[in-house]
Amino acid sequence: MSAPAVANEVNVARAQGVWAPAVTPLNPDLTIDTAGAIAHVRNLLQAGSHGVVLFGTTGEATSFSVEERMELLAALLDSGVPARRLLVGTGCTALPDTLRLTRQAVDSDCLGVLMLPPYYYKNVSDEGLYASYAEVIDRIGSSDLRIYFYHFPRLSMVPITHAAIERLLKAYPDTIQGLKDSSGDAESCTAFIRSFPELAVFPGTETLLLQMLRLGGVGTITATANINMTAIRSLYDTWLEGNEESAVERQEAITAVRSAIQTYPMIPALKTVISEQHGKPEWCNVRPPLTALPEGDRNKLFGALRAAGFETMTRRT
Amino acid sequence: MSAPAVANEVNVARAQGVWAPAVTPLNPDLTIDTAGAIAHVRNLLQAGSHGVVLFGTTGEATSFSVEERMELLAALLDSGVPARRLLVGTGCTALPDTLRLTRQAVDSDCLGVLMLPPYYYKNVSDEGLYASYAEVIDRIGSSDLRIYFYHFPRLSMVPITHAAIERLLKAYPDTIQGLKDSSGDAESCTAFIRSFPELAVFPGTETLLLQMLRLGGVGTITATANINMTAIRSLYDTWLEGNEESAVERQEAITAVRSAIQTYPMIPALKTVISEQHGKPEWCNVRPPLTALPEGDRNKLFGALRAAGFETMTRRT
Repeated sequence: MSAPAVANEVNVARAQGVWAPAVTPLNPDLTIDTAGAIAHVRNLLQAGSHGVVLFGTTGEATSFSVEERMELLAALLDSGVPARRLLVGTGCTALPDTLRLTRQAVDSDCLGVLMLPPYYYKNVSDEGLYASYAEVIDRIGSSDLRIYFYHFPRLSMVPITHAAIERLLKAYPDTIQGLKDSSGDAESCTAFIRSFPELAVFPGTETLLLQMLRLGGVGTITATANINMTAIRSLYDTWLEGNEESAVERQEAITAVRSAIQTYPMIPALKTVISEQHGKPEWCNVRPPLTALPEGDRNKLFGALRAAGFETMTRRT
Repeated sequence: MSAPAVANEVNVARAQGVWAPAVTPLNPDLTIDTAGAIAHVRNLLQAGSHGVVLFGTTGEATSFSVEERMELLAALLDSGVPARRLLVGTGCTALPDTLRLTRQAVDSDCLGVLMLPPYYYKNVSDEGLYASYAEVIDRIGSSDLRIYFYHFPRLSMVPITHAAIERLLKAYPDTIQGLKDSSGDAESCTAFIRSFPELAVFPGTETLLLQMLRLGGVGTITATANINMTAIRSLYDTWLEGNEESAVERQEAITAVRSAIQTYPMIPALKTVISEQHGKPEWCNVRPPLTALPEGDRNKLFGALRAAGFETMTRRT
């Protein structure tokens, strides 16, 4: 399957398909490698990504200041990456930070924002969760705002509850567009799809892609797409074509690759693979509290990926 | 016992005694009420607080932008609050944010910083935890930096491990000064005190004050000090004077007050009490995801406090 060119992609009003939450390359002093980040996003789009999430968990969003995040988005757009193929992670613990990032995304005509709830305080009430989003929506005050909930209970520790979604959908039906379910749990994702047919629901792992497409899910936003985009996209396309047998085979193949990588810490592992593909050791840099994959794990990871049928370990540049 | 005047307090090189992590009053639009915050900090010091933590969990630190936090510290210092009686919460998820806040505290000659680890990623390795603090210390590069670890596993979900402390103490013996243990767990606090006699260890609740003073703890940094400062301070002074019997009685009294308040969400409950004391409804404002105490709980809380012997519900201003 040939990868579609960036410029030929059709704009869609709502995100769907296979989206990559881009990892963020760093210079040796741990500042963002802007040119490297732009190149990586363009590579992902050329490899078939329907769109890219800028500053999700995989992109180490919370490890960057608001200024760093705004500068990278501006640079990406200046470089010609289409705003309608970007979802921007904007949910911070502090309301003014969330507002600044969200305003930039809206003013730049990005397709939407993928919004974590404030994630420091725990045991948040449905009322508090509702207020967290409502306060942002009211203060942004724009009909162009499009919110995708970011449900990642294992990291945010603040689940997006059905009760809060119901209330927000009722109050802001045009603003609330979708949800990424990063629980990794098929039951959780199924419940979101069944309870909220008006939302675009994405499982946060491609291991659930085919199962959730059958139930009404719209695609996947998955970390592994940073290295295995073409294969994941091909499953999506095969399913669209109605080729069930081929879809099942492709699901097994991409699940095998995911299984190989996810025994390692995901972000350092992804960066290590890309580092190898590009022959650039600095691609391994991460900000604390993350740590680079130990040298001893590097070849083990590559071996496991090859054994799983992953074929793109060769250098691309 | 008469409360010491702000100006007469002796500067100490290391924090000890009873410290209040100040709650942060908000205007109706949820911006910080700067004049109200200054007045509250001065009230705490006049009520006997050895010092004040600016922007701890109780102060809704993570709900404010870096700019908001820097502006309030500057305003407090401009108002004449002594820098040596302030510990400043500076630990953020993003290294540049932690650096900006920490630099301001160091440049302002604050007694130290109370530093959360980066708290978005979970299951952080000892290596990652070490790197998170080491990166800040190396980049600040000042012998005036004094770090107090902020161990609050129930909220940060990133415990400060003994292994990381050992390594940081070895690498930066003059920088690492103390630890606040907000686990609420006597065993945890005892282990910190016994393992690290070189650190000033504060339990994060006054219910453990006497028990930990006996073991070598240096005081407490506790949310309840926002409303019950004088009583908590009097236990500390009584213990210093060696009056064991009176200390036990005072411990029971302050524990009863704590028990009454902690069946409610702590921050909204504290703000509600202060609102009542000052006759200012706006003192109840909190930023999402927190929510104000429901009207129906207000009188129940006041009743429980009075039943516990809390005597300062009368208006102070």
